[in-house]
Amino acid sequence: MRDAYVIGAGQSPYGSFPSESYRSLFRTAFEATTESVDHGVDPSEIDEAFIGMISIGGRQLGLSGPAVTEHAGLHGIPTTRVENACAASGSGVRHAIQAVKSGMADLALAGGVEMMTDLSSDTTRYWFGVSGETEWERMAGTTFSGVYAQIASAHMAEYGTTREQLSRVAVKSHENGARNPKAHLGFECSLEQAEGAATVADPLTLYHCCPTSDGAAGVLIASEDVAAEYTDRPVKISGVGAASDGVGLFQRESYTSLPATRKAGRDAYEMAGISPDKLDFAEVHDCFSIAEILAYEDLGFCEVGQGGQLIEDGVTTLEGDLPVNTSGGLKSKGHPIGATGAGQLVEAFDQLRGTAGDRQVEDAEIGLTHNVGGSGGAAVVHVLEAPERAEVES
Amino acid sequence: MRDAYVIGAGQSPYGSFPSESYRSLFRTAFEATTESVDHGVDPSEIDEAFIGMISIGGRQLGLSGPAVTEHAGLHGIPTTRVENACAASGSGVRHAIQAVKSGMADLALAGGVEMMTDLSSDTTRYWFGVSGETEWERMAGTTFSGVYAQIASAHMAEYGTTREQLSRVAVKSHENGARNPKAHLGFECSLEQAEGAATVADPLTLYHCCPTSDGAAGVLIASEDVAAEYTDRPVKISGVGAASDGVGLFQRESYTSLPATRKAGRDAYEMAGISPDKLDFAEVHDCFSIAEILAYEDLGFCEVGQGGQLIEDGVTTLEGDLPVNTSGGLKSKGHPIGATGAGQLVEAFDQLRGTAGDRQVEDAEIGLTHNVGGSGGAAVVHVLEAPERAEVES
Repeated sequence: MRDAYVIGAGQSPYGSFPSESYRSLFRTAFEATTESVDHGVDPSEIDEAFIGMISIGGRQLGLSGPAVTEHAGLHGIPTTRVENACAASGSGVRHAIQAVKSGMADLALAGGVEMMTDLSSDTTRYWFGVSGETEWERMAGTTFSGVYAQIASAHMAEYGTTREQLSRVAVKSHENGARNPKAHLGFECSLEQAEGAATVADPLTLYHCCPTSDGAAGVLIASEDVAAEYTDRPVKISGVGAASDGVGLFQRESYTSLPATRKAGRDAYEMAGISPDKLDFAEVHDCFSIAEILAYEDLGFCEVGQGGQLIEDGVTTLEGDLPVNTSGGLKSKGHPIGATGAGQLVEAFDQLRGTAGDRQVEDAEIGLTHNVGGSGGAAVVHVLEAPERAEVES
Repeated sequence: MRDAYVIGAGQSPYGSFPSESYRSLFRTAFEATTESVDHGVDPSEIDEAFIGMISIGGRQLGLSGPAVTEHAGLHGIPTTRVENACAASGSGVRHAIQAVKSGMADLALAGGVEMMTDLSSDTTRYWFGVSGETEWERMAGTTFSGVYAQIASAHMAEYGTTREQLSRVAVKSHENGARNPKAHLGFECSLEQAEGAATVADPLTLYHCCPTSDGAAGVLIASEDVAAEYTDRPVKISGVGAASDGVGLFQRESYTSLPATRKAGRDAYEMAGISPDKLDFAEVHDCFSIAEILAYEDLGFCEVGQGGQLIEDGVTTLEGDLPVNTSGGLKSKGHPIGATGAGQLVEAFDQLRGTAGDRQVEDAEIGLTHNVGGSGGAAVVHVLEAPERAEVES
């Protein structure tokens, strides 16, 4: 089984771009991806592509994978759209790794794109809600914020987690996002602002919820046989894990933990041969602030029930022992659904190569990305290692 | 790179099943799949799943992969929905092969499901049209039948292909489908019926167009390391090829050939180390009768422009030299979009193991499956070999 390396990663800005299309945004991300390849890459060298996209509302519902890769100049290659709700391109990255490890591809592209702010199709907003469980949640009137509000309420009741702790997650995300020129909401917010914002679904305020964004991201994954042709500083993918679960909250034994995250994390740590305390940073799926606290616990950053305390103690700030969501996360960087998972690897790639600018984590050698679909019906975790470490081991 | 084998394959009946759901139909197919495994398989032994589905119209748009695998009793495994329009589960089969060859899975499920006859959501029929190119075809009023009618007209003008030849494709499909208990339209039709039926899009009549069907199918793919645990008669996947292309007809150099099919076929033949004349049968993507004639030419069953003559000469009938669509094909067996590609491998599995009943091809040793997305924006080809041959080579 060949090792797989990230040799390039890039993204479009995340935000609201009424003059862009899903094709043009993906092309922007693809160009940023190829430009990040140290020795250059010609699109014709790419063997295969996996595109994460929910793809709705008047756009290409079928064949939207080929529709974007053709527009980016990737002519004729096998292209598949992958969907796992918000874990679409995290899943795409994993399948690109499989394609490379299988020997059927030497260089595979995993990317994603979503246009969420265009409301010209009246079904757009409607469709973005339907990654929740349909029959027992959505059709009973439950929204995504409603689902995570239930999770937050349960976590508060079970472990004493406070709304202030949720707000501190948002404050941290915005602190980091303000240093990310690609962020959708690239500004700081105070604890008072987060606390005092309008309630979306009690106990969650506006600042406890990520925005809906336009954006695209791409990651180029190469086999160990060809990685050196593209860069002297490849980022090794040392751990991969994924899992599914019942789509609805009502199908779970607990409201305060996501089994899919736990299983995906366990498998990724095992494959990488590390425990969570070896991580230097992590990008986790904070669609709502409570989701970041769940991720702390399910990924083993702290004991179960201690996630609120972890943010309160400042452990996950940029200067803390384990910086989380240095990119700004879904909350501040933004959440263009299909792009989010690949976009997390863009941040990890930059951090591990020391090119994360104002938000660089010192001596970042091992990082993790964590992408969740729906309220936990799917999860994908990757462990990545800095070039120096990868070279020592190879 | 490990070899991959089909150790089980099964499908639900294709048809109109108003009392079924996409979950229950998939479960039926999954049970047929596991029941076909000679030594039995426990669902817990399956490592991963790829589910082809367009999935629209009031059902689960996001996370529909986990929604069906959980319902089938596949708890917690990585599940990804793959979409490539009508080539969805053909692509899923290919990615399951990659998962197995990568060493990340020993036993992977590729399947698909579609519910197309439920019109309770008014957008259902609308959405099934949108795998065509959106901006320049669909929004200009072109339907799928319209796209293939243009292809048929061009083929007639360029090569003298006749409407009677198109009808002979339909007659053959129905002859085979009448012998398939799982077929949606399992009855024979005469040349006169095919010729005289109502025009859908000139020159295509109703009998030149496949139906919209409900249905599901599944294929279990095992690594060479574990295949023998499940059966003494594994079907070897010796060739795999896939390609994309511009989504719209206007993006192609020719109307009378699908470059994606040509590239996918070429790669699959090369990997299998065979030429088309070694094939004993093929399941090709005959969404419209003209599409089968294109497949003959693009897959090298005959010279370019000779596809009409090939059917007229009876070469591709069940008793001919190269039987095509012994299952009845999309035309008679049916075309539940997400299930179609996997369903083609169900027929190949049965033919290569000698269990195809009344439609068995004598001495079937090498077969091909060919799945197309849209009007050629994607294509996937697999070459499969009978157990005896697989054993000799291993």
